[in-house]
Amino acid sequence: MAKNITSPEKDFSRWYLDVIREAELSDSAPVRGCMVIRPYGYSIWEMMKEDLDRRFKETGHSNAYFPLLIPESFLKKEAEHVEGFSPELAIVTHAGGKALEEPLVVRPTSETIINHMFSKWINSYRDLPMLLNQWANVVRWELRPRPFLRTTEFLWQEGHTAHADEDSAREETMCMLKVYTDFMKDIAAIPVIPGIKTDKEKFAGGVNTYTIEAMMGNGWALQGGTSHYLGTNFAKAFETRYLDANNERKFVHQTSWGVTTRLVGAVIMVHGDEHGLKLPPNLAPIQAVIVPIGRKEEEKAAVREAAHKMADDMKELGIRVLVDEREDMSPGFKFNHWEVRGVPLRLEIGPRDLAEGHVLASQRNKPGRENKFTIPMDGIAEEIKSALARIQEEMLAAAVEFRESRTYDVETYEEFKKALPDKPGFYRVWWDGSSEDETRIQGETKATVRCIPLEQRPGTGKCFLTGRETSTTAIIARAY
Amino acid sequence: MAKNITSPEKDFSRWYLDVIREAELSDSAPVRGCMVIRPYGYSIWEMMKEDLDRRFKETGHSNAYFPLLIPESFLKKEAEHVEGFSPELAIVTHAGGKALEEPLVVRPTSETIINHMFSKWINSYRDLPMLLNQWANVVRWELRPRPFLRTTEFLWQEGHTAHADEDSAREETMCMLKVYTDFMKDIAAIPVIPGIKTDKEKFAGGVNTYTIEAMMGNGWALQGGTSHYLGTNFAKAFETRYLDANNERKFVHQTSWGVTTRLVGAVIMVHGDEHGLKLPPNLAPIQAVIVPIGRKEEEKAAVREAAHKMADDMKELGIRVLVDEREDMSPGFKFNHWEVRGVPLRLEIGPRDLAEGHVLASQRNKPGRENKFTIPMDGIAEEIKSALARIQEEMLAAAVEFRESRTYDVETYEEFKKALPDKPGFYRVWWDGSSEDETRIQGETKATVRCIPLEQRPGTGKCFLTGRETSTTAIIARAY
Repeated sequence: MAKNITSPEKDFSRWYLDVIREAELSDSAPVRGCMVIRPYGYSIWEMMKEDLDRRFKETGHSNAYFPLLIPESFLKKEAEHVEGFSPELAIVTHAGGKALEEPLVVRPTSETIINHMFSKWINSYRDLPMLLNQWANVVRWELRPRPFLRTTEFLWQEGHTAHADEDSAREETMCMLKVYTDFMKDIAAIPVIPGIKTDKEKFAGGVNTYTIEAMMGNGWALQGGTSHYLGTNFAKAFETRYLDANNERKFVHQTSWGVTTRLVGAVIMVHGDEHGLKLPPNLAPIQAVIVPIGRKEEEKAAVREAAHKMADDMKELGIRVLVDEREDMSPGFKFNHWEVRGVPLRLEIGPRDLAEGHVLASQRNKPGRENKFTIPMDGIAEEIKSALARIQEEMLAAAVEFRESRTYDVETYEEFKKALPDKPGFYRVWWDGSSEDETRIQGETKATVRCIPLEQRPGTGKCFLTGRETSTTAIIARAY
Repeated sequence: MAKNITSPEKDFSRWYLDVIREAELSDSAPVRGCMVIRPYGYSIWEMMKEDLDRRFKETGHSNAYFPLLIPESFLKKEAEHVEGFSPELAIVTHAGGKALEEPLVVRPTSETIINHMFSKWINSYRDLPMLLNQWANVVRWELRPRPFLRTTEFLWQEGHTAHADEDSAREETMCMLKVYTDFMKDIAAIPVIPGIKTDKEKFAGGVNTYTIEAMMGNGWALQGGTSHYLGTNFAKAFETRYLDANNERKFVHQTSWGVTTRLVGAVIMVHGDEHGLKLPPNLAPIQAVIVPIGRKEEEKAAVREAAHKMADDMKELGIRVLVDEREDMSPGFKFNHWEVRGVPLRLEIGPRDLAEGHVLASQRNKPGRENKFTIPMDGIAEEIKSALARIQEEMLAAAVEFRESRTYDVETYEEFKKALPDKPGFYRVWWDGSSEDETRIQGETKATVRCIPLEQRPGTGKCFLTGRETSTTAIIARAY
C-alpha cells in the first residue's frame, strides 16, 4: 500500500481524499465548497473534453458561449425550474461600484438565457434543429462539498437543442445518452446503466431525464451524465416558436444534456486502488512512462539515448509517453510518483536491460513484482500500443465484473433493508412506487431509485415495496 | 458592397457592428455589457485557443483551473491591484439563500487566488519554476461595451508563473510576448509591435507590462495581449516564498500574461472589408467552401460526387473544407453567405466545369469577378493547399503595408495634434514625458502612448512634447 493512502476497504471516503491529494488532482479553495483543479487533474478533464467535443461535433453540434450572469427574473419564468434551483443560487447584487437594479444570478445551468437567445434566432422550420453545446463553469451553492463530485463551482458541458417536433427532440435526447454511454465505456472504461429517472429525480423544468448510472468501488452509484427531454416547457416560458412549412407558429421541442468534472471523481472511484489512481489508457494524459536507470555517467547516457529513441517511436504511433529524466530522484521515488498518478504502463530500462535488448514493464492494473514482464526493444512501439489496448479492455472487464458481483435481485423491501448495510450495491427490483414511496425509502435507508433501466427484465412481478403487479424494474442504491 | 453592411470608410464603428451581425459572430445579451458568442464566432475563438494552447504546452506550461469566486479581502492584499480593479468588480453578496459573511468577487483576473494556492504548493527551489495557464471567463463591469473588444464578461487565458529569481521571471515574460507575437503573425496574419507600457498604462500590481500593439483598419491601435513581470509584489502580499539551495527563504518572482476574445475583434478590424469578414486561412474554421451548381437532377448528382471527391482529397491534406449542398438556396445566396463569413477560398463547380475538368476559384482577399481563376481538378488538393498558404502571406503583407502607410514620424506635439484628426495612425515620436504628460495628451487628443517599442530607433532626439533630449521612441495613437 502506498504511503499516505488509507485502505479503500477500511475507509472509502478517506481513501478518495487521500488519492486526490497524493496524485495532486485538486486542492480545496478558500471559498466554501470550491476547489482548485491542479494540472494533473485538469489534464484528465482535458482528455475527456477533447474526446467528448469530437463526439458532439460528429453528431452535428456546434459550440457557442452564453453569459455567466443571468437576470434573476429569467429563472422565475419556468416555475419548476426556479423552485429546483433557488436554494443553490449565488447572487450578484452589486457591480461597477453600485447596487444593481435587478440582481443577477451566477448561472446554475443555462436553459433560461439560451431560450432567451433561441427566441431571437429561431424564426422558421429552416432554422431547426438548432444544435448547440457550451463548455462552461456553473455555480450551485453546495453544503456538503466533496472534490470533483459535489463542488460549488464545477466545469461542465451543457448541450441545448431545439427541434420542430417531439420525435426529433426525443431522438436527440437518446442520441446524446448513447454518446455518453459510449464515451464512458470506450474512454473511461466505466460500464454504465442507461435509464430514465423517476419523476422525483428528474431535472427541474424538464419532462423526462435520462441518466447513465455507474457503480463506484464501494458499491455506491454515481450519476455520470444526464440527457433531458424538456418538451415545450421552456419554449412556452420564453415564447420560443417557429413558423412551420404551413406558416403556423409552433413551440419548439427542446433537449439539454450535460456531463461535469464529477466524471474525474468517477474515474478515481471506479478504478483506483490502495496504491492510488489507476487510469484507463484511452483517458490517461500519460499512457506510458519510461524510467531510465543507471549509476555511472556513461551508462546513463546510453540508457537515456535508448529511452528517447523508444519514446520517439511510440510518439509516432500516437502514444502519450514521457521519459522521466529527473536527476535528483531515485527510481523507487519515480515508480511511486507514477503509480499513485495511475499511469497505465511503466517501463524501466537499465544498462543490463539495454545489453539484453529489452525493457522491464509493469502494468498499473496488475501491481506486484511477480507481474512485471519484459518487452524486446525491437519493435517496442507496436508492442506498447497493443499492451495499452489490452489494459483498456482489462480495466473495463474488471469494472463490469465488479459491478455484476455487487448487483442483487431482491423481492421485498424487508429483504432490501436487511441486505443493503452489509452489501452496498445495485439492487434490481420490480417497481411500481410513487414519489412518496421513494421519499420513504430514502428516509429509511438513504438509498434512492437510480433509474428505470432502458433494458428491462421481461415479464412482470410484484413491486418490492407496494406489492402491486408491474412490468417495470428499477435500480436502487446508495448514491453520491 | 454587401447588403446591410455600412462602408468602413463611411462609419467604421457601424461597419464593425454590421459585420458581426451579418457574419453571426456574436449577439448582445440581456445583461449590460455582456455578449453571446454565436457558433461561428466561437469557432474562430476555438481555432485561436487550439493554436495558443499548443504553443503554451510546447513552452512547458500546464493548464489548471482556479475558482471563479474570490474573497473580497484577497484583492485588498495588493494595494495597487485593488485600486485598479475595484471600480470594475461584480460582487456576490448572497448565496445558498443567505447573506454571505464575506462578499465574494467574481474574478476580474486571478493573481490573488493563484498566489494563495502558490503559497501552499511552493516550498523549495525544486518546485520552481511553476508554469501554469488557465482558460477561463472573467468579469469586469464595462460602461462602454463593444462586442469582443470590451465586454463585461470575456473569455481569456491567463498564464501565471513563479520563478526563483528576477532573470528567470523576466525571461518568461519576454518568451510569452514572443509566443503572442508569433501567433499574431503566423495565424492571425496581424503584424504587431511588441513593446513596454509606460507606468501609466501598466497592469495594476505589476512591475512592467509588455504589450503587442496592432493597427486596426481605421488607423486606431488595439492592445492584442499583455505579458507582465510582477516582481515580488504579489509574493509579498501572499507570502509566496521558497527555500533556496542554501536553505534561505526567498520570495518568488512572478509573471502573468493573457489574451482574450478581443482578438476576434482584432481579426475583424484588421482584415475585414465592405463585403464583411475576411479570415486568414490559418485561422479560418472553414478554409475552403465548394459550391456545386446544377439545375437538372442528373447533372447535380455528378457535380456533387466530384465535389465530395475533391473535398475528401483536401481533408486528407488537413484542409478544412465544406461542401455547401443546401437545397433551397441559390448559388448567389451561398456566395454571399460565405463571403460575409470571410471563408478564404470559394470553389464553384458546375456541369461545364466538370466536363472541362476544372473548378472556378475566388479568393476572399481578392474580390471581384475579374480575379476569379480556374484550378484543374487533377491534383486540386495540393493546389488548394498552396493557394491557402499564398493567401495567408498576402493577407499579412497587406496588413503590414496598411500599417506602414499609416505610420508617421512627427517631431512636435503641435504637428501631432494637427495631423491626428485627419490621419489616424501610429505616430512615432521621441519620448521623455511623465504620466502627467500622458494624461494631458489623452485629454487634448484622446490618443495614448501605446508602447515603447522593443525595437528602438538608434540615436537620440528631442522629446516631441517636453523637448528634452532622449534615446527613447514611443508609439502614440488613438486606441480601442
